[in-house]
Amino acid sequence: MTLAYDGSGFHGWQKQEPPGRAPLRTVQGEVEQVLMRLLRTPRETLHFFGASRTDTGVHARGQVAQFDAATPIPIERLVRALRDHLPDDIDVRDLALAPPDFDAIRGARHKQYRYTIWNSLEKPLGLRHQVYHAFVTLDVPRMAQAAALLVGTHDFAGFSAAGHGRTTTVRTIFRCEVVAEGQQIQFIVEGNGFLYNMVRIIAGTLVEVGRDRLSLERVHAAVTTGDRRLAGPTLGPEGLCLEWIRYAPTAEEAASV
Amino acid sequence: MTLAYDGSGFHGWQKQEPPGRAPLRTVQGEVEQVLMRLLRTPRETLHFFGASRTDTGVHARGQVAQFDAATPIPIERLVRALRDHLPDDIDVRDLALAPPDFDAIRGARHKQYRYTIWNSLEKPLGLRHQVYHAFVTLDVPRMAQAAALLVGTHDFAGFSAAGHGRTTTVRTIFRCEVVAEGQQIQFIVEGNGFLYNMVRIIAGTLVEVGRDRLSLERVHAAVTTGDRRLAGPTLGPEGLCLEWIRYAPTAEEAASV
Repeated sequence: MTLAYDGSGFHGWQKQEPPGRAPLRTVQGEVEQVLMRLLRTPRETLHFFGASRTDTGVHARGQVAQFDAATPIPIERLVRALRDHLPDDIDVRDLALAPPDFDAIRGARHKQYRYTIWNSLEKPLGLRHQVYHAFVTLDVPRMAQAAALLVGTHDFAGFSAAGHGRTTTVRTIFRCEVVAEGQQIQFIVEGNGFLYNMVRIIAGTLVEVGRDRLSLERVHAAVTTGDRRLAGPTLGPEGLCLEWIRYAPTAEEAASV
Repeated sequence: MTLAYDGSGFHGWQKQEPPGRAPLRTVQGEVEQVLMRLLRTPRETLHFFGASRTDTGVHARGQVAQFDAATPIPIERLVRALRDHLPDDIDVRDLALAPPDFDAIRGARHKQYRYTIWNSLEKPLGLRHQVYHAFVTLDVPRMAQAAALLVGTHDFAGFSAAGHGRTTTVRTIFRCEVVAEGQQIQFIVEGNGFLYNMVRIIAGTLVEVGRDRLSLERVHAAVTTGDRRLAGPTLGPEGLCLEWIRYAPTAEEAASV
């Protein structure tokens, strides 16, 4: 299933049930509850999980999640029922039968994130949970130059929060672009995978470059040395949105070609 | 002063201090508090009020408000201080010295409101407090025809909530247009004044026309007879935004022409 949500009312994607306390409101928790009720399937059998564990306040237009169910409900009716029963800040955008070997996490090959900056003295008001507010006028062409330095296969240790136990910090960025329109500036970042906080650190680095507080040479050094101290700060979650995820063909699909 | 705000977190514009209970969070109340502190002026001397008493959940891009103050703070510094001290959901867009006879309420000659519809099966998610969600596809050209019927000087009793003690329900609508862009449909309404709930009832009427549940003849009858039962329902406040207010030249300005 493809899910879209406004992350501002959630403690992130991943279910959190602290012992002896009320469970926190999470996207996984909310969707799981609705699926269990509609499909009359216990949690253990449902085995519901998502491709990306988005953090508190981070949004999604194309989160991919999967579950196991044996149900007579036609898929079109299930989509409508999900849409009706999910809260206002979660929507189902697609639902389809997956091949038996589909794995939303391991099969992901290409993801797009978008980070939105509100670049104006004026406050974003109703958009304040959807954008990061940068008061100082940013130099868009300079940011675009810095963004281009990130494209390619690099050790992105310099652009990740430490201690998340990944075996390798090498990732490939396919696209990193800066698009300005009106008061908004968007960073569009596509890659084969992302380290913890990576897009938010890329955004923080580009904003520092746009404010002329960080040089292109330094961005280059951050990419080549993997030194976290060379990159910019981690920007807030409000500007971040998981746009879409593309998958490798499954064994079945590959065989049918 | 010109104020913009996201109405979703307020019990409307007007200050509400129920006896023996905590004051409700209102735009007037919040701005007044900040002005009193920055200008060190007691409430009675400040005499702070706004042109339009927007309802709970209604937004503004150009609310006009006024106050009396004797202060050595230059106007540019006062704007910055206000911006800093006001909460995230209120912004100052302009501040200027008014002529002594300026009256934000009585001097208003022309107002623009905008009502935004989210016309899609998909949920508006992060925009849900800024738009009214209409699932069924609306007929935009038909709505535009109905909107045109409202332009002119009419008795708008049929488009107002009863019992608000206005001496006359005759108003002039200068412009009533339907603009569709992507998933959004906007009703732009300009007039010399508006009755209570008038724009929300106009929006409800246009949506009923767009769903083909209300005929153009019936809209015409609602305008000519003033019968509230002929018009559509009052839509929610979330789609409504006060865009701007224009003023008559003051006596001083008129004299200088």
